[in-house]
Amino acid sequence: MLSAVSSSLLTFHKPFTRALRLPLPKLPISSNPKPLSSLSPATSSLIPNATGGGRAGALSPAPATDDLQKIDVNPPKGTRDFPPEDMRLRNWLFYNFREVSRLFGFEEVDYPVLETEALFIRKAGEEIRDQLYCFEDRGNRRVALRPELTPSLARLVIQKGKSLSLPLKWFAIGQCWRYERMTRGRRREHYQWNMDVIGVPEVTAEAELISSIVTFFKRVGITASDVGFKVSSRKVLQEVLRRYSIPEALFGKVCIIIDKIEKIPVDDIKNELKSAGVSEEAIEQLLQVLSITSLTKLEEILGEAGEAVADLKQLFSLADKFGYSEWIQFDASIVRGLAYYTGIVFEGFDRGGKLRAICGGGRYDRLLSTFGGDDISACGFGFGDAVIVELLKEKGLLPELSLQVENIVCALDPGLQGAAATVATILRGKGQSVDLVLENKPLKWVFKRASRINANRLILVGDSEWQRGMVSVKVLSSGEQREIKLDELE
Amino acid sequence: MLSAVSSSLLTFHKPFTRALRLPLPKLPISSNPKPLSSLSPATSSLIPNATGGGRAGALSPAPATDDLQKIDVNPPKGTRDFPPEDMRLRNWLFYNFREVSRLFGFEEVDYPVLETEALFIRKAGEEIRDQLYCFEDRGNRRVALRPELTPSLARLVIQKGKSLSLPLKWFAIGQCWRYERMTRGRRREHYQWNMDVIGVPEVTAEAELISSIVTFFKRVGITASDVGFKVSSRKVLQEVLRRYSIPEALFGKVCIIIDKIEKIPVDDIKNELKSAGVSEEAIEQLLQVLSITSLTKLEEILGEAGEAVADLKQLFSLADKFGYSEWIQFDASIVRGLAYYTGIVFEGFDRGGKLRAICGGGRYDRLLSTFGGDDISACGFGFGDAVIVELLKEKGLLPELSLQVENIVCALDPGLQGAAATVATILRGKGQSVDLVLENKPLKWVFKRASRINANRLILVGDSEWQRGMVSVKVLSSGEQREIKLDELE
Repeated sequence: MLSAVSSSLLTFHKPFTRALRLPLPKLPISSNPKPLSSLSPATSSLIPNATGGGRAGALSPAPATDDLQKIDVNPPKGTRDFPPEDMRLRNWLFYNFREVSRLFGFEEVDYPVLETEALFIRKAGEEIRDQLYCFEDRGNRRVALRPELTPSLARLVIQKGKSLSLPLKWFAIGQCWRYERMTRGRRREHYQWNMDVIGVPEVTAEAELISSIVTFFKRVGITASDVGFKVSSRKVLQEVLRRYSIPEALFGKVCIIIDKIEKIPVDDIKNELKSAGVSEEAIEQLLQVLSITSLTKLEEILGEAGEAVADLKQLFSLADKFGYSEWIQFDASIVRGLAYYTGIVFEGFDRGGKLRAICGGGRYDRLLSTFGGDDISACGFGFGDAVIVELLKEKGLLPELSLQVENIVCALDPGLQGAAATVATILRGKGQSVDLVLENKPLKWVFKRASRINANRLILVGDSEWQRGMVSVKVLSSGEQREIKLDELE
Repeated sequence: MLSAVSSSLLTFHKPFTRALRLPLPKLPISSNPKPLSSLSPATSSLIPNATGGGRAGALSPAPATDDLQKIDVNPPKGTRDFPPEDMRLRNWLFYNFREVSRLFGFEEVDYPVLETEALFIRKAGEEIRDQLYCFEDRGNRRVALRPELTPSLARLVIQKGKSLSLPLKWFAIGQCWRYERMTRGRRREHYQWNMDVIGVPEVTAEAELISSIVTFFKRVGITASDVGFKVSSRKVLQEVLRRYSIPEALFGKVCIIIDKIEKIPVDDIKNELKSAGVSEEAIEQLLQVLSITSLTKLEEILGEAGEAVADLKQLFSLADKFGYSEWIQFDASIVRGLAYYTGIVFEGFDRGGKLRAICGGGRYDRLLSTFGGDDISACGFGFGDAVIVELLKEKGLLPELSLQVENIVCALDPGLQGAAATVATILRGKGQSVDLVLENKPLKWVFKRASRINANRLILVGDSEWQRGMVSVKVLSSGEQREIKLDELE
């Protein structure tokens, strides 16, 4: 069931790079065994860039060498092409993102893939900042290919100001970029589905967002035994830090350090926290709290008065009403790696434990003021296109997606090419998709193509039928064939 | 009928830029009159980046100034945001591009928006090359945001080589970029719909491509009295140049010079051609031929043996069979501004004469060899998202696209928020879209929101009905209201 589709979408880097330098007597790759050029040698002699390598149709002198290029036929390192089979999978995935968003009443938005670098510059030591795909444009402005969509959303919300009716429920599917100096076998771009609720301070918003992701998982066949959500709140850390009178300016930095807890040794975490100015006592308490996975235990330590416990309790209560209790669990170690989260944070994980986080999100009530706007309560999530495809592959849930064209129309005689065009136009006018055979090909070839495109019907335009205003229609599943009048063709 | 949608999509540059620098006691823009932050002052005191400008909830000291940024709330110069109303128009346009492509049996593909610069470097003096949005990445590689999709297609076709079954019929909708040093009020990005046929040397391919564009126009309400196609063949120029023994290496350059014929004075064209090495006699003949708009006249001058006339005659004959004769006309002055075209070239224009070309395309049988592949016959077109929207606006054909959510679900009591979540989940499970009211709001507000999202039904979850397992359903068009059992809700 697993085809070339998935493997290409899963590939993070190409194993090798094929580069061509011209002129060469023999090229290391042969793209097409039979060049189909229609140009006679006489005609082609005036065409630029015809290379003089003994190739058919290139009888003219070799062109000036400055027209020749060394071309790598692979996409740039860390990026992907989407040939038809991969594009079908991408479209299927995006269709499900869009359908879920529609069911939840969210409106689609988009922002430029290129933004000013300043939009993404935060000082908390985030990985996303270190890996910014930034550069100077031809006008010497610092710009960046967006690493995430949320700052652009914040920018647009500030720009639109009073004209917006809150709450906003917006979703976007956009390509995001990162640049890593070291090769770690990771891609430099991915697509990310975002859903955000702007203007709702209540935890109902987070509960709704998680419900939409659960709805997505169910649609594509993923169950609560395949994946789960780990949920916590940054207010847990806040409440601990407040006990030790740690200045608020440290909060984002502390979160970013703690987020690395499963990636680097705990002693390094401790040292980083110490360097950041957190006392040893506070560090011990922090680490102790982070190991809690029971809300009751959390309440024992933090007391029942704080917002952290109250928010989490409400979220778990709502999860029950939404019907996804079995999907979520409390885990104080979840902090997320973005500096701007302020409340509930969550991430989707595979229960097999093999994959990175599938998606993640949280509340970011204070982001707008960092850009100079008035703050508005907000929460959202990002859901990438890479890990989900790995998971679907692993679970055998990747769909079989094949090209499907309803009709193939073919002239049986070169002189009937125009007649075939008429037939194709009639069918297309009735909403039928048609692959019109544009060359004169033997029937055997036509049947092979019909099979490749999964056509339902083969419509042959032959001379004797055409003179009677008819065409021959063959239903390919049954083999049934009959003549149909042109004006009865549907 | 024309809303904010169209004007924003039509705007090529913003009239001014609003930049914010923090901290400021009063901000020049106010994004939201009533900040909805849920955080109490006590809670917010631990949150980073809370600015100390007297804003509610910011009782803590101002953060370190290096956390403050000057943020321009507009997207970078020459780029667009797509707020919901603009996104609906974009989705409508892309839907029509996709539907037409589907009717013609084309498969969707995509390529990275970022490519190596070398892919776009051609030496013919094209505008597209001069305006390349190129830069050096953090690994000191020369890369570019793609100005067009065709070179990436050629790269992918070479890469896939023998695995492809010709002919390919591929389409793509991708964002393309350009960088102009001078401000000419033009955008730096646009989306382009491309359709390409790879592997068909016959003119049937061009005829099919033009048919697909005509089909698109008809779908969106544009007629043959609104727009037309000017068609010629680069072989016309070839045949003239051959008479004067002008070397083939000049061909691309000559085409690019001639393409400027309507933009710069004819004497400048003559001088450029002379500088390129074309004799005065040849220049006179070229300019004479370019003024021809009758195929009969062209045949008189070029003779009937050449491919230029034969191709064009066949195309016009096929146009008749496809049923779009009234849409196309021969015009020898059409050359197109890309160096790689080799045969038929065409462009869509508005008969009102106010707009730039709507779309354009042609045959490029020799492109692959310039990248080191074996040549394969190919033709295609590009169709941008800017001029078509201007035309639709001018003709009053922009669609009314509003948000439409089928249901709005609202709890009448804060304690019933979970019940409302249950109701929303049931409806969504049945494929119904639901805007769930996430806050406790007065009914007046809920009705206003229901109207804004064009909801069909308002579903109210009240205590007494809920205890009986029922909800109150109001059909908003008729005002009819009744109680429905939860398990009968559809």
